[in-house]
Amino acid sequence: MAQRIAVIPGDGIGKEVMPEGVRILEAAARRFAIDLELEAFDFASCDYYLEHGQMLPDDWFETLEGFDAIYYGAVGWPETVPDHVSLWGSLLQFRRRFDQYINLRPCRLLPGIQSPLAGREPGDIDFYVVRENTEGEYSSVGGKMFEGTEREIVIQETVMTRHGTDRVLKFAYELARSRPRKKLTSATKSNGIAITMPWWDERVAAMGAHYPEVAVDQFHIDILTANFVMHPDWFDVVVASNLFGDILSDLGPACTGTIGVAPSANINPEGTFPSLFEPVHGSAPDIAGKGIANPIGQIWSGAMLLEHLGHREAADAVVSAFEAVLRDGDKRVLTPDVGGTGTTEALGRAIASRL
Amino acid sequence: MAQRIAVIPGDGIGKEVMPEGVRILEAAARRFAIDLELEAFDFASCDYYLEHGQMLPDDWFETLEGFDAIYYGAVGWPETVPDHVSLWGSLLQFRRRFDQYINLRPCRLLPGIQSPLAGREPGDIDFYVVRENTEGEYSSVGGKMFEGTEREIVIQETVMTRHGTDRVLKFAYELARSRPRKKLTSATKSNGIAITMPWWDERVAAMGAHYPEVAVDQFHIDILTANFVMHPDWFDVVVASNLFGDILSDLGPACTGTIGVAPSANINPEGTFPSLFEPVHGSAPDIAGKGIANPIGQIWSGAMLLEHLGHREAADAVVSAFEAVLRDGDKRVLTPDVGGTGTTEALGRAIASRL
Ligand SMILES: CC(C)[C@H](C(=O)O)[C@@H](O)C(=O)O
Ligand SMILES: CC(C)[C@H](C(=O)O)[C@@H](O)C(=O)O
Repeated sequence: MAQRIAVIPGDGIGKEVMPEGVRILEAAARRFAIDLELEAFDFASCDYYLEHGQMLPDDWFETLEGFDAIYYGAVGWPETVPDHVSLWGSLLQFRRRFDQYINLRPCRLLPGIQSPLAGREPGDIDFYVVRENTEGEYSSVGGKMFEGTEREIVIQETVMTRHGTDRVLKFAYELARSRPRKKLTSATKSNGIAITMPWWDERVAAMGAHYPEVAVDQFHIDILTANFVMHPDWFDVVVASNLFGDILSDLGPACTGTIGVAPSANINPEGTFPSLFEPVHGSAPDIAGKGIANPIGQIWSGAMLLEHLGHREAADAVVSAFEAVLRDGDKRVLTPDVGGTGTTEALGRAIASRL
Repeated sequence: MAQRIAVIPGDGIGKEVMPEGVRILEAAARRFAIDLELEAFDFASCDYYLEHGQMLPDDWFETLEGFDAIYYGAVGWPETVPDHVSLWGSLLQFRRRFDQYINLRPCRLLPGIQSPLAGREPGDIDFYVVRENTEGEYSSVGGKMFEGTEREIVIQETVMTRHGTDRVLKFAYELARSRPRKKLTSATKSNGIAITMPWWDERVAAMGAHYPEVAVDQFHIDILTANFVMHPDWFDVVVASNLFGDILSDLGPACTGTIGVAPSANINPEGTFPSLFEPVHGSAPDIAGKGIANPIGQIWSGAMLLEHLGHREAADAVVSAFEAVLRDGDKRVLTPDVGGTGTTEALGRAIASRL
């Protein structure tokens, strides 16, 4: 039976990189005889919002829940729709309603890409950020008092649960244990954020009791960001709350040269609901429409999708294909963010033909 | 009449760098005929806590409020006192009770220091982080429900006020206007943190109406950290909430080679209460006791103290003195974090003799 994938390009460069992502998925499916069925949707985009007054159709949940995976581009177009409206109306709904409580983001310096960090080579940076993806600092609980006056007070609650925290910690410990270095770093801020974060530290320690083989350390988020720059080689698996994970998984890829190549998987590990795969980059209004966005973030996310659906070999082949193209370093096919003069499509085609 | 300065070394390397900070303050006072009166205190340290069961004596507020400034080292010794206990019992009290609502942190690549960013030279990185310093994400409001059970829920509130936000924005706009580039960047996360941060954006825009000469942009905190690494030259003045400012003011200095040199000023601009000057680095348990901590963060904070007390010329002389020593690059006096083999004291003495 075919595995069904919902394809949602979204906004901005999402619409430009998605065709290349699809090109590679289809090429991989052909080569490895995988029965994939792709179906495209125009919702979860700001264009859809402008037409319908909402980001998603009323029956989006029923429409998508039967799919095996969701392949997403990027969302957000602040010129026409405020970011909190577009994001809370789409991506953040998906993550929550489909209980995609793990956001997994590999951070790896690829061959042929220049790190902005002096003297760093492929192999020096190779870690995962495991981000809690459904609760924490991203809440919609709170409100305003004395609104519009000098006395205005605005309150927003961070909400963490043992249920939500322990399951992401468990995933992170399991991942760390499966890797050669078996090292886990916890992102905290228990010196300043005095209620939730000391409790987070306790949960990290409690879960650690089940994983004596894993070496654990922790850093406050401020110095942790500094260490990403000064000592990226220290890290193996980094586990973080929703907000801290968001920050670290943009900063990490920046240290590897471009966030244009970074992938992410929003995973519901139980498989009760579809998982969602999307590049780390956003819709990038500054370069949208020019056809020069790097499609590798989208393509690598597609590789994670293939692996999630059980096609390990195909996933590895996709990664090898874009690594080979990067290693070749042909400036005519590389996009500007990685030092070339090529287009999104040229880079996508080059990777497809490698495959 | 003498200006009175409360000297609080605190913990760990705070006790090692403070003597050098004092050495330089006294040398500057001699050279510029400034009448300073320094008084040392042992409280606001974990040693004090172990002896007295609290970080501060009951009358700390009355003891300190008459001083013209507080010169602080570093606080925290998690091996004996949990960080949230030591910090909320000392530094965070000072900031709040003395209404030091501005945390000003220059971030500048100094001569003779190697940036971890490839190809960056002095002049390429030169900006200020203006951090809100009394409210926001650092609240002690919240609590737990179903504590100790599987259903445990932990809630912590971020509290922002118009009063607290507008005054830091005003300070940041004024600072931006006074600089040649007149550029202000706001750190936000209004796409994910859906109540406080869209409101923050509104306040930034509202205050901007009074500063038409200042060019304003904004980035979500995730991509902003990435841009600190990829494009540190983009920034002039960056304004941020308490937590975001905390992160950016460790990351920024890391991009300039070491957080060991970074200074900070916790300012009560009205002068109703003493302002507080401290290095950005913490107590650094990993190197404490070795006598190799870089004293420049402490010394530069002392220069900010001198400037705050009206001694601009003396402040500039202190900065010139440590810049000259760094430029000389004598490895025997430089501390290990900046590529030398020297000690805290040797570097302090070298700077003093330049002065
Ligand atoms: C020690 C800690 C509470 C403090 C903070 O987060 O404010 C420190 O990191 C700083 O930046 O001054
Ligand atoms: C667009 C935004 C809401 C989102 C997030 O903060 O989660 C994005 O930055 C990401 O990392 O996936």
